[in-house]
Amino acid sequence: MDEKRKMDELINIGIALASEKKLDKLLEKIVEEARRFTNADAGSLYLTEGNFVRFVVSQNDTLRKRYGEQKEKSGYLSFTMPISRENIAGYVASTGRLLNIEDVYELGSDVDFKFNKSFDISNNFRTKSMLVVPMIDDDKQVVGVLQLINSMEEDGEIVAFKGDYEKLTFSLASQAAVAVKMAKYRESLKASNIEMIERLSIAAEYRDEDTALHIKRMKNYSAIIAKHLGFSEEEVEMMLFTAPMHDIGKLGVPDSILLKPAKLTDEEFEEIKKHTIYGAKILAGSQHEIIRRAEVIAISHHEKWNGKGYPKGLAGEDIPIEGRVVALADVFDALSSKRCYKPAFPLEKVIDIIKKDTGTHFDPSVTDAFFRGFDEIMEVYNSYKEV
Amino acid sequence: MDEKRKMDELINIGIALASEKKLDKLLEKIVEEARRFTNADAGSLYLTEGNFVRFVVSQNDTLRKRYGEQKEKSGYLSFTMPISRENIAGYVASTGRLLNIEDVYELGSDVDFKFNKSFDISNNFRTKSMLVVPMIDDDKQVVGVLQLINSMEEDGEIVAFKGDYEKLTFSLASQAAVAVKMAKYRESLKASNIEMIERLSIAAEYRDEDTALHIKRMKNYSAIIAKHLGFSEEEVEMMLFTAPMHDIGKLGVPDSILLKPAKLTDEEFEEIKKHTIYGAKILAGSQHEIIRRAEVIAISHHEKWNGKGYPKGLAGEDIPIEGRVVALADVFDALSSKRCYKPAFPLEKVIDIIKKDTGTHFDPSVTDAFFRGFDEIMEVYNSYKEV
Repeated sequence: MDEKRKMDELINIGIALASEKKLDKLLEKIVEEARRFTNADAGSLYLTEGNFVRFVVSQNDTLRKRYGEQKEKSGYLSFTMPISRENIAGYVASTGRLLNIEDVYELGSDVDFKFNKSFDISNNFRTKSMLVVPMIDDDKQVVGVLQLINSMEEDGEIVAFKGDYEKLTFSLASQAAVAVKMAKYRESLKASNIEMIERLSIAAEYRDEDTALHIKRMKNYSAIIAKHLGFSEEEVEMMLFTAPMHDIGKLGVPDSILLKPAKLTDEEFEEIKKHTIYGAKILAGSQHEIIRRAEVIAISHHEKWNGKGYPKGLAGEDIPIEGRVVALADVFDALSSKRCYKPAFPLEKVIDIIKKDTGTHFDPSVTDAFFRGFDEIMEVYNSYKEV
Repeated sequence: MDEKRKMDELINIGIALASEKKLDKLLEKIVEEARRFTNADAGSLYLTEGNFVRFVVSQNDTLRKRYGEQKEKSGYLSFTMPISRENIAGYVASTGRLLNIEDVYELGSDVDFKFNKSFDISNNFRTKSMLVVPMIDDDKQVVGVLQLINSMEEDGEIVAFKGDYEKLTFSLASQAAVAVKMAKYRESLKASNIEMIERLSIAAEYRDEDTALHIKRMKNYSAIIAKHLGFSEEEVEMMLFTAPMHDIGKLGVPDSILLKPAKLTDEEFEEIKKHTIYGAKILAGSQHEIIRRAEVIAISHHEKWNGKGYPKGLAGEDIPIEGRVVALADVFDALSSKRCYKPAFPLEKVIDIIKKDTGTHFDPSVTDAFFRGFDEIMEVYNSYKEV
């Protein structure tokens, strides 16, 4: 391929990298594209974190062919190394200079860095040529190191990385660096979004008996059910944002009712029911999908499959699916955890109640999805236990 | 410049575009870079919105030289045109095809589109050659149209855009398209973040007499003061996120005190004061700067310059600057708007009070910044009046 076509391809790769929304997928894509670009058998990527580089991606065709993808992946663990001139990735991160090494077993005594053979030994692999490139963003920060291993001729011979590749790979690494920087920025926006929603949702339940752990569990239960209902990845993620806001309308219910230690009168219960309407009002009319979906959940998470829920008495599929999902997640959590008026029920009892109430309170397809994802439900249940 | 260098430059432009966080700056940058790349005297950019294209950027060196930048900019208004084959931008948006026109006054009768001469007539300008390029993102969506006008030779002669430019400009437009798509995505994340914070802040004050308009005014007052204190653009924007959360801790104060119609007892007032501590607790210990700053504001917005505020009784510059800013914004709004226990005071009276309390309650430098930005303060005051 001539240089002009390489350059063209580089622009297309740049476009592909810039458009990847998820950091983890982006990092895999960077290594894939760089390997393809340089005919590298293997490649890995380190991200800088303060004075360390963290090993985050590894791809190795030879090992994949030998052991299959599962085994290939399981061989790697994320680890960090100090940014020092002694290891290769650290050297590149600290100097910002590219290394093109013909054979890492033949490093001259004049270089500072050493090649660590432990991976080769434990995997019966032979690392030979390496092109190690700093990923420098537009603020001149080294955000990571891209390490390409064993450039292959068509006949399978391992050769040194061509000199031509150096500049192009350096360009690719710069594009990748900016893409990484922007992906991190997006993820931090999203994370603070989620965190804020969670904090305020917890605060809104300040006066209620619910806890931070309830919010964490029920939003994860909701996401798991959604996943097993076949929601898209994006919609599943959306659940993590929207489900926490289901009870936000309790802000509108007076203390005297919300915190009443005794049984509520009928009038008081009617007042409590209004938290669904208050919640929808708080969230009403947004142009943002997240907030629109949260509004739907707030208004519909107390509806029942048989039409005997509130506030509208909707039945069956007239109840928005998100509301049906959150209804089950919310009740499962209420039953399976301790509240001031009841102990945590044993799981068998909770499961019996849910099965019994399916078709009346709960949508059968939602309950099915819940049980299909039960292993994951249990992981959440065990991770966020009340102490 | 040879094609390889152009290609190199294109990659660098791609990096620059991908790293621009703000959509409006990005759009200006796209037109600038594309003009530089093609020696175009003028250029404009349209974004697609449903079945329309919206005219969003215009740059014109000739008019800038003739009238100065202010006048040049003031000549343009954002407007929309239907995506139809009749106008040039609409034609390119609907077909996804690039147009390279030697002289728009000499369009053949075999083409569907027409050139609209009204701009030329009203500005005494002569549009001649045009390169009009669709901005197609990685999902094959036309997100906009880039219109380059009058390619110039070094001697100032207007010539047709070189054929060589077509493919390169098309590439640049694709990179720009992805950058625009991602910038829109980021802005929508940010906007929903802001909106959510605002809604929940309002909800948190559900039981209080404060209103949505109070939140809108006081966050804008805070941002204006911050700007005139020399905060960076990013920090000023941050104020819009963080200031609304100043009273979030009121969620922890019981109705019986918060909503008490009569004068509070000393004990009750001590309870009210705790909203600063509750707020900080809700927001405590985040790794996100936005939430950390909101925590600072929650805990410090009732401190006074002379040390007689609460909860800590900090004085002078020991009070975090954000807290000093929000203190003034909050009090100014309380005085200048109607509350259930008082009418809105006339502005002169409010200003007198603020001046009198400066050096005791308020930081003098914050009050100075407030008055430096007073025109903007008044704009906000008038835009978000209680009806």
